[in-house]
Amino acid sequence: MPANLLDRLRSTLGDGAVLTEPADLAAYVADWTGRFVGSARAVVRPADTAGVATAVRLCTEAGVAVVPQGGNTGLAGGATPDDTGASVVLSLERLRRVRELDPVADTITVEAGVVLQAVQEAATSAGRLFPLSLGSEGSCTIGGNVATNAGGTAVLRYGMMRDLVLGLEVVLPDGRVWDGLRPLRKDNTGYDLKQLFIGAEGTLGVVTAATLRLFPATPRRATALVTLPSVDAAVSVLPLLREHGGGLLTAWELINRQALDLVLTHLPGARDPFGVAHQWYGLLEFAGTSDEVDIELEAALTAAFEQELIADAVVAGSPAQRASLWALREGISESQKVAGASIKHDVTLPIAELSDFVAEVGPRLVALMPDLRLVTYGHVGDGNLHYNLAAPADQEATLRAAAGDLTRAVYSAVATRGGSISAEHGLGTLKRDAAASYRSDVENDLMRAVKNALDPHGLMNPGKLVP
Amino acid sequence: MPANLLDRLRSTLGDGAVLTEPADLAAYVADWTGRFVGSARAVVRPADTAGVATAVRLCTEAGVAVVPQGGNTGLAGGATPDDTGASVVLSLERLRRVRELDPVADTITVEAGVVLQAVQEAATSAGRLFPLSLGSEGSCTIGGNVATNAGGTAVLRYGMMRDLVLGLEVVLPDGRVWDGLRPLRKDNTGYDLKQLFIGAEGTLGVVTAATLRLFPATPRRATALVTLPSVDAAVSVLPLLREHGGGLLTAWELINRQALDLVLTHLPGARDPFGVAHQWYGLLEFAGTSDEVDIELEAALTAAFEQELIADAVVAGSPAQRASLWALREGISESQKVAGASIKHDVTLPIAELSDFVAEVGPRLVALMPDLRLVTYGHVGDGNLHYNLAAPADQEATLRAAAGDLTRAVYSAVATRGGSISAEHGLGTLKRDAAASYRSDVENDLMRAVKNALDPHGLMNPGKLVP
Repeated sequence: MPANLLDRLRSTLGDGAVLTEPADLAAYVADWTGRFVGSARAVVRPADTAGVATAVRLCTEAGVAVVPQGGNTGLAGGATPDDTGASVVLSLERLRRVRELDPVADTITVEAGVVLQAVQEAATSAGRLFPLSLGSEGSCTIGGNVATNAGGTAVLRYGMMRDLVLGLEVVLPDGRVWDGLRPLRKDNTGYDLKQLFIGAEGTLGVVTAATLRLFPATPRRATALVTLPSVDAAVSVLPLLREHGGGLLTAWELINRQALDLVLTHLPGARDPFGVAHQWYGLLEFAGTSDEVDIELEAALTAAFEQELIADAVVAGSPAQRASLWALREGISESQKVAGASIKHDVTLPIAELSDFVAEVGPRLVALMPDLRLVTYGHVGDGNLHYNLAAPADQEATLRAAAGDLTRAVYSAVATRGGSISAEHGLGTLKRDAAASYRSDVENDLMRAVKNALDPHGLMNPGKLVP
Repeated sequence: MPANLLDRLRSTLGDGAVLTEPADLAAYVADWTGRFVGSARAVVRPADTAGVATAVRLCTEAGVAVVPQGGNTGLAGGATPDDTGASVVLSLERLRRVRELDPVADTITVEAGVVLQAVQEAATSAGRLFPLSLGSEGSCTIGGNVATNAGGTAVLRYGMMRDLVLGLEVVLPDGRVWDGLRPLRKDNTGYDLKQLFIGAEGTLGVVTAATLRLFPATPRRATALVTLPSVDAAVSVLPLLREHGGGLLTAWELINRQALDLVLTHLPGARDPFGVAHQWYGLLEFAGTSDEVDIELEAALTAAFEQELIADAVVAGSPAQRASLWALREGISESQKVAGASIKHDVTLPIAELSDFVAEVGPRLVALMPDLRLVTYGHVGDGNLHYNLAAPADQEATLRAAAGDLTRAVYSAVATRGGSISAEHGLGTLKRDAAASYRSDVENDLMRAVKNALDPHGLMNPGKLVP
């Protein structure tokens, strides 16, 4: 049957749309970090929605599992096939059309394979803003952003991908197309079906296009790197930043010294803008259309100084200076990769719990492994920490051996405090079972009921998200 | 069995929690407009979540349908039992606790029966804002706001109820409680289950509590009533209001002359602030913390005048003047009720289609009934029109006879232009079948799959939302 399936796929989609040579498959069966590696019977690359529908229908009829894949930049193994070699990777990379940009309705409709940065640029060309922004924006795709409910550095002001989607086009597991590409801000005509597919990691269907919200452009930015007396100060200053910022607050990012040290060591050209080392830093940005961003930043910093919530500040005086401040934040992930092994955690805490969490869990982890380096940073305004663990080069084996215990200690502290073990990276295979273990039975049953209702044969990205 | 059910409900919830006398039931089996009237075997009024769970479990075990009800202020018959008398109305009105207000996390957790205005007041007392605002805020409840995905006059800035909910507590059809009361801004650990219950009108479970987002208080308001040359101008001015308003734009409401006339005739004390009559008016409000609201309003009005997008303006010079301007908008619904019969439509159009819709559908309706009065108003910033039809007192019978044709003409024009036949009022029984008729087969199948998955016995508010 599967051999017949490949013939049918080739005859309907064209030979070039079906890859089966190992050399051609290599880039699709492993994720970009190299951590997740699987195998597949084929990679199918349809050129449009109708092709995706055909591919899904043929696979379903043959009882073959489908693994949807966008830019393959995920961090949880959600787009990598398992190692049985039985499944078909369905790449959306050829669905690259910007179908419509409507500046009056403030919407853009794009296909799943459009790269996030291309959407940002299309919005900018029309004098608008598409605010989703994350490290991989040059290669991640809108389909993947929808499937994983992507977050990033502007969530504080604009929300997650879920908040930016107005409508979706989805190929369902039976190969039918649901056209839910509505540009409406208000539509109370039943269950909000698009919500099912956002963040579902392709386990309920394949997103082929999305209608997204646009916003007024914010060409002026005022950016500062500040030093903080504590994590508590980073939390306490937030209402002040919101209120003194006149609604312009766009980013409030936390960076600890060990994270900054990694960047200063490994990122060419990076330099510490402060004379002495501090334990905690915050990267602050206001965005708007005029000088008001500078005025509001100045006012907010002054108020924060007066209340001793920040200790020192460097304000970017030029776009180049802004870029170098942001490089200190955005360079962390890459610097970690260069520096060697690390164990990553992407967690949310109720914001009032952040400080206690950091104070409590650090010593507990160091007790498990004395030379552990706590690389702590993230989107503090959303309660979201990238709480990563690294070790000196000669102790990587020790780190790997301790990984299970370390992660359990982190997740346990998160769960005890009512947090989430995946703030924005999703579950994939990496956190699928851990997430299930922290859910109540009721919640696991609800998850399963949704999965079974929409994908009764379990062929859509099996093994991801739900156990 | 049902008789036995009432005994079991009484013995577990207490006699006072189970009403069966017709006089006691009267207020629960009809909606406030008197348009929807049904009957019920009993009204059950549990005092807490455990009581709701017990009530639902006992009803489900007895095979008896449950009709959840909050403040009974809905406009689509979603909380009214059918006329078989077989079902039990489950009133949430005794679940009135504000469980927690967290000013750091900017959240409030309240039970389903808490009146919207009480949530607004609790937020204000803590120096925060809960932005949901609608005509019935003095009597509608949070549970109903969640179940219907309520909208109102601040959607433009803050979104619908769906956008304001962070977590939910829900009693499922089998009587189990799903505790999803998380205060997290980011949580990517599976399907977003809360989205299933928001806007589901109690057809998938009973919402017993919600954790809601709060915002910085906006004690300063700058408000103006303007006259508009056309509907097109009301749409075209929107980007200008957003950009000149520095993010402070909170309301942009459209009112036509016939709507204003109704208020001037029927609302005691109402007066026309302009010397001559105009066809279209806009009510504009900026909200913030300082004088900036006045400065921004002035700047926006000046820019709009220069571009001839507004013709005249009255700016409120005091809170009393602001109240009287808002009374002209908020008094429309009540004035319509006093004036006599009307046929209401709550529709959304893609915003670029609004002007053409109004230009096209009005003459088509007047062709059906020459003396028809087009009472047109709504949340133009969201593309949402309350497109209501009235008639002189001596032609009410004609209006009622033509109602079906008129509504079909309106919905058809909405559907042709890609709009929604229910922007914010939901479907209930009123629009259940019409909504189904405008959905694709695929979409109806998805709706049904969700309903069957969560409520396999079909006992949760049967006959509402889904046919």
